[in-house]
Amino acid sequence: MLPAAACRRKAPRVKLGKCQRRSPKLKGKELLLTPGPVQVPWSVALAGARPFPHHRSQDFNELLRSIDHKLKQVFRTEGTILYFAASGTGAMEACMVNLMRPGEQAIVVAGGKFGERWDELAQAFGIEAHVLAVPWGEAVRPEELAELLAQHPQARTVFTALFETSTATAYDIEALAQVCRTAGALLVVDAISGLGAIPLETDAWGVDVVVGASHKALQTPPGLSFVALSSERAWQQVERAGMASYYWDFRRAKEKLFFTPYTPAVSLLVQLNESLIGLLAEGLECIRARYERYARATRAAAQALGLEVFSHRPGAVCTALQMPPNVDATQVVELLRERYGIWVAGGQQQLKGQIIRIAHVGDITPQELIGTLGVLELVLRELGYSCRLGAGVAQALTVLEDAGPTPATASDGGK
Amino acid sequence: MLPAAACRRKAPRVKLGKCQRRSPKLKGKELLLTPGPVQVPWSVALAGARPFPHHRSQDFNELLRSIDHKLKQVFRTEGTILYFAASGTGAMEACMVNLMRPGEQAIVVAGGKFGERWDELAQAFGIEAHVLAVPWGEAVRPEELAELLAQHPQARTVFTALFETSTATAYDIEALAQVCRTAGALLVVDAISGLGAIPLETDAWGVDVVVGASHKALQTPPGLSFVALSSERAWQQVERAGMASYYWDFRRAKEKLFFTPYTPAVSLLVQLNESLIGLLAEGLECIRARYERYARATRAAAQALGLEVFSHRPGAVCTALQMPPNVDATQVVELLRERYGIWVAGGQQQLKGQIIRIAHVGDITPQELIGTLGVLELVLRELGYSCRLGAGVAQALTVLEDAGPTPATASDGGK
Repeated sequence: MLPAAACRRKAPRVKLGKCQRRSPKLKGKELLLTPGPVQVPWSVALAGARPFPHHRSQDFNELLRSIDHKLKQVFRTEGTILYFAASGTGAMEACMVNLMRPGEQAIVVAGGKFGERWDELAQAFGIEAHVLAVPWGEAVRPEELAELLAQHPQARTVFTALFETSTATAYDIEALAQVCRTAGALLVVDAISGLGAIPLETDAWGVDVVVGASHKALQTPPGLSFVALSSERAWQQVERAGMASYYWDFRRAKEKLFFTPYTPAVSLLVQLNESLIGLLAEGLECIRARYERYARATRAAAQALGLEVFSHRPGAVCTALQMPPNVDATQVVELLRERYGIWVAGGQQQLKGQIIRIAHVGDITPQELIGTLGVLELVLRELGYSCRLGAGVAQALTVLEDAGPTPATASDGGK
Repeated sequence: MLPAAACRRKAPRVKLGKCQRRSPKLKGKELLLTPGPVQVPWSVALAGARPFPHHRSQDFNELLRSIDHKLKQVFRTEGTILYFAASGTGAMEACMVNLMRPGEQAIVVAGGKFGERWDELAQAFGIEAHVLAVPWGEAVRPEELAELLAQHPQARTVFTALFETSTATAYDIEALAQVCRTAGALLVVDAISGLGAIPLETDAWGVDVVVGASHKALQTPPGLSFVALSSERAWQQVERAGMASYYWDFRRAKEKLFFTPYTPAVSLLVQLNESLIGLLAEGLECIRARYERYARATRAAAQALGLEVFSHRPGAVCTALQMPPNVDATQVVELLRERYGIWVAGGQQQLKGQIIRIAHVGDITPQELIGTLGVLELVLRELGYSCRLGAGVAQALTVLEDAGPTPATASDGGK
């Protein structure tokens, strides 16, 4: 998620002595707290080294059926999940080309970089998109969507995110789905980062189409994405609309449902299966509770340090913290990474240099969260920001204590 | 590659006693001799379990640059290689949407299932394809391509395969490139299965665009594909043509060359890097010589057993063997798999039940080749075909002996 420029190594302000540098020879431990890719549990990592079945075998068919059975519990749907060897943007493109026709109108909710991606996709495919521009950091308001739908009666497809990762903002999909149902519009939700971390009741709320990917709360390496079609009218729209497509063709994918039409990324699917076993063993509710606890602890630490939470409607995927005026967020990200081996994300586009984003999804223990928040205090002070050491950590610990014992991740299924 | 129906377990003709069945509980060793996915070296498999760098990091940038440096030696080009999180068909689609405009004409060489895939893609995207229909098992003749190009002066883009996997037939790309250059046509080659196994001098022969994938001779799990654009006129055509696209957009991919525009399949790239290190350490020439030796040994065994090689122009990716009239190839495939844990491919479409295809690419030792050919004799006899036990193996061994010592694969780079 970091822009390429953020990767240039700037000299830290403090001149380091001989024993104050990380070894340049040995690659030390790194902690991935970016909002995708995330920390992968060791059992999932090792599953990537296993021999994998041929994709036209009974074994593969059983693997994908087993994944599907579990993934439906995460997607909260009894509908059809289609599997793509592609990252999330590919599955978003698949929705655009299967659900729309060139020249048709659509509504796009754009409150950050990933909402804007829907708009870019619409433009690329000749869709007339009416953009509901949401100020970055705010959540879309359902009544604004209702208004826009009323203004554009020809636009009966709505594209939105569940969690706008660039601003760390969660949207109220239940309310948006209600608006769409009233207006007779189809709702397509990019849940790539939010799936499994932000409340989403696909079937119960009447969300028609949901996009997901492997490398966020599903804690698998990147390269897999999914489209869940939960409603009859979603399939009717696929039949009615649909642009030129082949690799993304939903009908073809449905025909070869538990084989996939083209060679799938089998080893990643083996890893996904391993991860889902762990996630369901821990319990999806418990996992979400853990992510939310981490988010609350992070916000409490921020408050104690005098930092503002950037989003008006934060969610459990990651927390965006506004850096103080005289602290360059890019330097915070760099120091955390270069000095301490901790990867957090900076801001994107207009938020570059303004915020840092700390992920809560993935295989993260309470110790790793607390340690990171502590090290953040060191970094802020090194960059000239005044705060009392331990103040943030103390508040974060208080949140954890109040919530009762927080187990270390049990996402390897207790094995 | 096997059609789904081939996965149904048919009862073998021989009734098995208690100690003649493979354990249903323990999943035994399997040998993947299908023409993709292939046997992955252990060092590459284990690399799939490693922590991987964030895709917006300097480390990732260096990884992809290092891959690119090595992969260019396989592609035999100094041009630009674009990287996609997708299987091979995705990269084929990418070529179609970046190089063509709807309504334009093209020439498609179709001598098997994968040539036909170019035609299906052309149809899906509204391209008027003039199909050079090559009888299955034969190679396209350059003079026929020249004729078709002369007949259709508006069709200045030619889509072909390097190795038509469905018939195990290698095409003479050098001659086809010569024809294209004379006619002023752009040549796009699907080298998904052939890359690294079949001669292809991209730059020297003037091949404009080449498609590759991770899971064939590059012996990495599936989920990565590549498009190499070697010529200035290929890029000119991208500028001039190009349909609606976003995920596949070549210009966007080129802009973010060593980062990729969207989240890449990082763990698979780590594995690809490991594999390329091994392949270059063994030497690309040596590897191709090994594959060719295996193909010759397989053909020699077939001849001794009275089996015909299906293709008129076989190549080193895999060998297609015509089964005798009274032997069902599907049963041969099933028995090899169910009884002996060896995965070979059957025939596709009209070749179903007619041929078996034994792959030579991937991490395969001489012992595995010889053992497989021996077991094939057992299976043929079990299915009622009369042949002298050891006759095929003896001829295969003779080929290996005549070629001089064949080392066990050194594709882990000697580590």
